[in-house]
Amino acid sequence: MARHARRGLPVPSDFAGPPSRRQRRSWEESDRAARPARLERVRERLAAGGLDAYFGLRREEIRYLTGMVLADGEEKVAGHSGRFLVSAEEVVVLADSRYTLQAGREAPDARVEAVTYDLPARWPDLLAGLGARHVGVPGADVSHELFDALQAAAPDVELVSIGGWVDVDRATKEPAEVERIAAAAAVADRALAALLPEIRPGVTEAVLAWRLEVLMREHGAEALAFDVATLGGAQAALPHGSPGARPVRAGRVLLFDFGAQVAGYRSDMTRTLFVGEPSARDRELYRLVAEAQAASIAAIGRSLAAGRIPSGRALDRAARDVIAAAGHGDHFGHGTGHGIGLATHEQPSLSRVASDEPLPSPTVFSVEPGVYLAGRTGIRIEDLVLMDAAVARVDILTRFPRDEIVLAG
Amino acid sequence: MARHARRGLPVPSDFAGPPSRRQRRSWEESDRAARPARLERVRERLAAGGLDAYFGLRREEIRYLTGMVLADGEEKVAGHSGRFLVSAEEVVVLADSRYTLQAGREAPDARVEAVTYDLPARWPDLLAGLGARHVGVPGADVSHELFDALQAAAPDVELVSIGGWVDVDRATKEPAEVERIAAAAAVADRALAALLPEIRPGVTEAVLAWRLEVLMREHGAEALAFDVATLGGAQAALPHGSPGARPVRAGRVLLFDFGAQVAGYRSDMTRTLFVGEPSARDRELYRLVAEAQAASIAAIGRSLAAGRIPSGRALDRAARDVIAAAGHGDHFGHGTGHGIGLATHEQPSLSRVASDEPLPSPTVFSVEPGVYLAGRTGIRIEDLVLMDAAVARVDILTRFPRDEIVLAG
Repeated sequence: MARHARRGLPVPSDFAGPPSRRQRRSWEESDRAARPARLERVRERLAAGGLDAYFGLRREEIRYLTGMVLADGEEKVAGHSGRFLVSAEEVVVLADSRYTLQAGREAPDARVEAVTYDLPARWPDLLAGLGARHVGVPGADVSHELFDALQAAAPDVELVSIGGWVDVDRATKEPAEVERIAAAAAVADRALAALLPEIRPGVTEAVLAWRLEVLMREHGAEALAFDVATLGGAQAALPHGSPGARPVRAGRVLLFDFGAQVAGYRSDMTRTLFVGEPSARDRELYRLVAEAQAASIAAIGRSLAAGRIPSGRALDRAARDVIAAAGHGDHFGHGTGHGIGLATHEQPSLSRVASDEPLPSPTVFSVEPGVYLAGRTGIRIEDLVLMDAAVARVDILTRFPRDEIVLAG
Repeated sequence: MARHARRGLPVPSDFAGPPSRRQRRSWEESDRAARPARLERVRERLAAGGLDAYFGLRREEIRYLTGMVLADGEEKVAGHSGRFLVSAEEVVVLADSRYTLQAGREAPDARVEAVTYDLPARWPDLLAGLGARHVGVPGADVSHELFDALQAAAPDVELVSIGGWVDVDRATKEPAEVERIAAAAAVADRALAALLPEIRPGVTEAVLAWRLEVLMREHGAEALAFDVATLGGAQAALPHGSPGARPVRAGRVLLFDFGAQVAGYRSDMTRTLFVGEPSARDRELYRLVAEAQAASIAAIGRSLAAGRIPSGRALDRAARDVIAAAGHGDHFGHGTGHGIGLATHEQPSLSRVASDEPLPSPTVFSVEPGVYLAGRTGIRIEDLVLMDAAVARVDILTRFPRDEIVLAG
């Protein structure tokens, strides 16, 4: 079913409004209540691995496990501030003078230790204070240089490069986390609905991208999940290209890939709209991509109904098979989806090389197949899906309609 | 000299307007023309170190050396796309299917190699293609995990952890780089001037932060250099705190720390304004911080006039001595300044632990002393300074007035 301009187009009030202050406070409470169990999972892994402490460095983990909030990118200017140690007994948050007050306020259950840029100089004392001789560090989060410097600073402490323990834990979502992802999805839905009347031939991609950003922020996003991509016509074949001074042209596709951040959690959605009547080719590709997406989402429900939790690889295959059967297998180069939460891309992964093991549950991920014809056109449709195997629930958090939309050209 | 509301306040037209399209094109030309010399500096270091290839991973270096543009944060979702190898003969840019077209267009002088998430699987071939057996990798930019995985993937290739070669090179600025930093500074100047009429008691910090962001974007910024900090009263004692729902109150300080990005280059400035007549304490602290800043900037000119290029440590000391002499040494915990360019914080550093060696030249850095009284008030003044020793030039790129501003309370 196609929706044409001036009849049946989505409007902002179709979607949930921004969260109330009360709602936001309740999420803060939920985090506070959930943190001991989150820490307990880290401590169980420490015990199982014969380690005394965990050294966490990533922005998302800092918030998840300690409560301290760094904006995206702030970690690049914050030095070691926010990085933390977890032992069986304690949580220690590092902060330089700029962050001491903030760390104390946002992470009241942690001990805040003053650390400047020279962490290796403090390392032996910090570990001695925790009685830690065997420390696990996620090898993907620590630089080669820092790992070596810490090892050299305390040669009697064993530094063990470990996998992404907290990445794995974060893939399973608590109810209050799902609520925030859904709230971020609703902000994005509303913003795109509010933008529709501004989309017409002649407006540039860059202007629409900026307007969409403003609308998300004005509809309740504290930040974007990532830079808005607005790509018209052949540009849409660049799945991650940047919007330019190119004007929208009638008879071409117009792809928006964007997401909001609400109370720390993110959304991610893509819609490919038509401005003026699309070509038969574009319309056919749209239907193909929509069919592929529907096949992947249907596969989740079918699997749960049969008592099996699907794998990321199987869900990728469900979408890819549809596209390959239409002869466009080579025009769908990326994976079908990714987990989302405090980070825009996190576990689990839906792709050809993803795990064949059952997905975590409950979890939230994108389902975003696409077909890209270089130099000609590109179509992608992306929604966020909540899967909760325990109650056989599959919920599409992105509420903006998926059916073809043709705006006045 | 104090500027009071409705007389002598800065207005947007006091500052340079956003760059023209022609200006932007000329910067692109300058980059293209400068890239061979930038690469040559890497190649000289390779030759001096007995290495065959350099493996670069940082967003800023990708743009500086290859021309490929990733937005800030995009590196977190781009996989290995944009990462690159430089040998004596060639530049190779890695890209997964989402980035292949973009890489080819933005880095036309490089060979683009398709690489998915599994870089180690491609590593031996990539190096064989370059004839490289000894590869330098900046140890601060590569994760411990990836370093180990690459080493294991090609055991006969020596992987050498090196320092920040390109960080050092980027600290010395080309004329077209300085122009872009100055353009970003002007955008920020104009935006704050445009915001002044909106500042009054009762408006929240969060609203002012958002308005300042909108004004920067509408005045020519393609992005922010970092999230706007708007901090009133006691909050200003958190040098990097986040704006909240707190309303502006008369008789308190209001600190704005913000920056714009123009054609890839960034600015960073701080102004502490008074809304309504300030207390004697705040006024005295303001004068002290202004004096400390002026002392540091004056020290640059004095040093150059004497035929010496100052060190980052000496310029920090010049500001710190003024604050310490007034008994506030313990209330100025951070460094006096940092270099700026494609990144918000880069070399050189002005701090107590900075190098005693002469600064690079020409270079651009912030001078931003502050005094913070926990739970009471905070004052910081931050400007960007261009130092070009060859012509004994010291130019304050931030043009917004530094003298005390008292807005109607």
